[in-house]
Amino acid sequence: MNVYEERRDKVYTWMAEEGITLVMFQHTEDQRDPAIRWMTGFPGEALLFLVCEEKKCMLVPWDLNLAKVFAHADVLSPYNDFDRQPLKAITGAALYFGLPLGTKLEIPPATPYPVFLHYVEAILNFDVICRSGGVHEEVEALRAVKDAEEIGVYRQVSAITNELIELLEKQVRAGKLKTEGETALFIESECRKRGCEGTGFETLAAGPGRSFGIHPFPAYTMGDFAAQGLSILDFGVVYLGYTSDVTLTFAREPLTKPQERLISLTERAYRIALSFVQDGMPTKRIAAEVDTFFNNAKKKMPHALGHGIGLEAHEFPALRNRADNAWTLKPGMVFTLEPGLYDPLHGGCRLENDILLTEAGAEILTNARIIRL
Amino acid sequence: MNVYEERRDKVYTWMAEEGITLVMFQHTEDQRDPAIRWMTGFPGEALLFLVCEEKKCMLVPWDLNLAKVFAHADVLSPYNDFDRQPLKAITGAALYFGLPLGTKLEIPPATPYPVFLHYVEAILNFDVICRSGGVHEEVEALRAVKDAEEIGVYRQVSAITNELIELLEKQVRAGKLKTEGETALFIESECRKRGCEGTGFETLAAGPGRSFGIHPFPAYTMGDFAAQGLSILDFGVVYLGYTSDVTLTFAREPLTKPQERLISLTERAYRIALSFVQDGMPTKRIAAEVDTFFNNAKKKMPHALGHGIGLEAHEFPALRNRADNAWTLKPGMVFTLEPGLYDPLHGGCRLENDILLTEAGAEILTNARIIRL
Repeated sequence: MNVYEERRDKVYTWMAEEGITLVMFQHTEDQRDPAIRWMTGFPGEALLFLVCEEKKCMLVPWDLNLAKVFAHADVLSPYNDFDRQPLKAITGAALYFGLPLGTKLEIPPATPYPVFLHYVEAILNFDVICRSGGVHEEVEALRAVKDAEEIGVYRQVSAITNELIELLEKQVRAGKLKTEGETALFIESECRKRGCEGTGFETLAAGPGRSFGIHPFPAYTMGDFAAQGLSILDFGVVYLGYTSDVTLTFAREPLTKPQERLISLTERAYRIALSFVQDGMPTKRIAAEVDTFFNNAKKKMPHALGHGIGLEAHEFPALRNRADNAWTLKPGMVFTLEPGLYDPLHGGCRLENDILLTEAGAEILTNARIIRL
Repeated sequence: MNVYEERRDKVYTWMAEEGITLVMFQHTEDQRDPAIRWMTGFPGEALLFLVCEEKKCMLVPWDLNLAKVFAHADVLSPYNDFDRQPLKAITGAALYFGLPLGTKLEIPPATPYPVFLHYVEAILNFDVICRSGGVHEEVEALRAVKDAEEIGVYRQVSAITNELIELLEKQVRAGKLKTEGETALFIESECRKRGCEGTGFETLAAGPGRSFGIHPFPAYTMGDFAAQGLSILDFGVVYLGYTSDVTLTFAREPLTKPQERLISLTERAYRIALSFVQDGMPTKRIAAEVDTFFNNAKKKMPHALGHGIGLEAHEFPALRNRADNAWTLKPGMVFTLEPGLYDPLHGGCRLENDILLTEAGAEILTNARIIRL
């Protein structure tokens, strides 16, 4: 059984318990879902159908040629044969697998309400289900705890990320990366030389004049990077599908007192967060500790403390101080901690690393830091 | 009245005709909608509320500092004040504008079904509407016909794109861009030097061994580009928010007969498509003409003929041969024509340019071509 079969097997088991016969996953331009890559290895646009009883899956790729190279699936059926319409493909899959009338078909919870109405009108012979707490969320929960294969990949992507961090510090210190653009393109180029698929998201490189933005706009320009004051560099590289996500702050002296305070508070918040990372800890609690620390310093962090990473740059578990966050940490989870503070006058400061929780505790995978120049 | 007010004014007029009091637009991580940028200039994550009677809008940005720099809106209200939850923000906006109970509130048609149910449960005092054919689709239709400001931007982004095309040909001929990665990073760097925000999508650079993929995976590698056979380069650059989208094919001789045929058929399909571009033409018809041409040659194009471009790389009008495509061309539309054929053995060939339809007919904005080396 290969790793994709193992993952699908977990899903079949869950489906059987819930009495769901057929599930559709959708990874298209409008509705992204890397769960298809997780279960088949195929990174392109596609639908995926899982049939519980037979434990079979049908992949419906947009690009059949590409699927033949990458996909591990029981059946391949071109999306073009269904006019690239999920509705036609569902019906086609139900027919192919000979499902009896009245069968329960679950579609993604991201399905827009008007589209759902359309499905219900058009698919009279089956029971179409679209819900929170269904198969798709179960798959997200499964993906939140990495398996041995994925942890192996994370050690590799972290090693590459750390190599880049060292290189970046060296190049910046040597005056070889002077603009946001040079810095971002250096990462694009160097990560691919090391076998990466690319970056996990558009690199955010913000010199002192723009680092006040949580996500600066544009992501990077040809303006100065790592000049006097605070510059932020937020990037991730993707290896075998999995992305890292780190943020360095470059602090070039002399710094103002408020800038020194932003650095000191961010570093302390990071240590506080890390000290709460352990098996069974509610992530809301960790985020609340950091928020309280900042509040006591009369500061406010305008974003979440962190998030899971994997095939997506943002996945579960959530690490935020919000009533609806019920996640607790478990061994196998890989996530970021990224406290940050932003001041329109003095600039921004963020420190972000990737953490793997093991049975033995927190393992800090990446070496991002606040670098004084 | 600035251009954003003019655009919002068109929307208020439509809302009044339809009896809709309040509309929410959503541009967040899960649900992208550049309509907010179109109506306020703000490119970051945000919600936008339009109130018909008062002709007022409230922008709810995630990053308030960034919004103060970029946004043109009547009211700014930080998303964090609503715990970054659309549901709380809707209620907040309705209260702020003092809307009477029972008022009709329209939310995006992309709202997932389970989320819609949640809204309906939680918002008892107002009539929550989520539908096809509502305000959001009207805004998409308005955006499909570019205004004078936008056409001006398209002349600029096309000029930059054409400059890059010439440079790319020169550099490839001179042997200075030998890998997919060098070629893609050259575009990233050169476009920003010319004031672009970045690329409109991840540049697709596929050497002869990978050009069989419609969208090769990964988008680019450190492998050979423009070596013997067919290489595809699909890119767009973004200027003031608007993206171009062109595809060059580099054909390095000697070519096989099947490769020559792919080139010849693609070029002829492109000319056929262009010959049908005129005011009032159903786009389905244009795409059908190309499909018929390819079918007669015993070939099949596995993707649509083209699509509108603008603040997104793919927007309306659609140019596809599918029953549900009811778009007709109108002056002011800017769209791509991109016939292509893909062969697992001989590679792929695509030719894509950006077209503006004016009162005088088709204006080919970009100079992409199949380049023989």
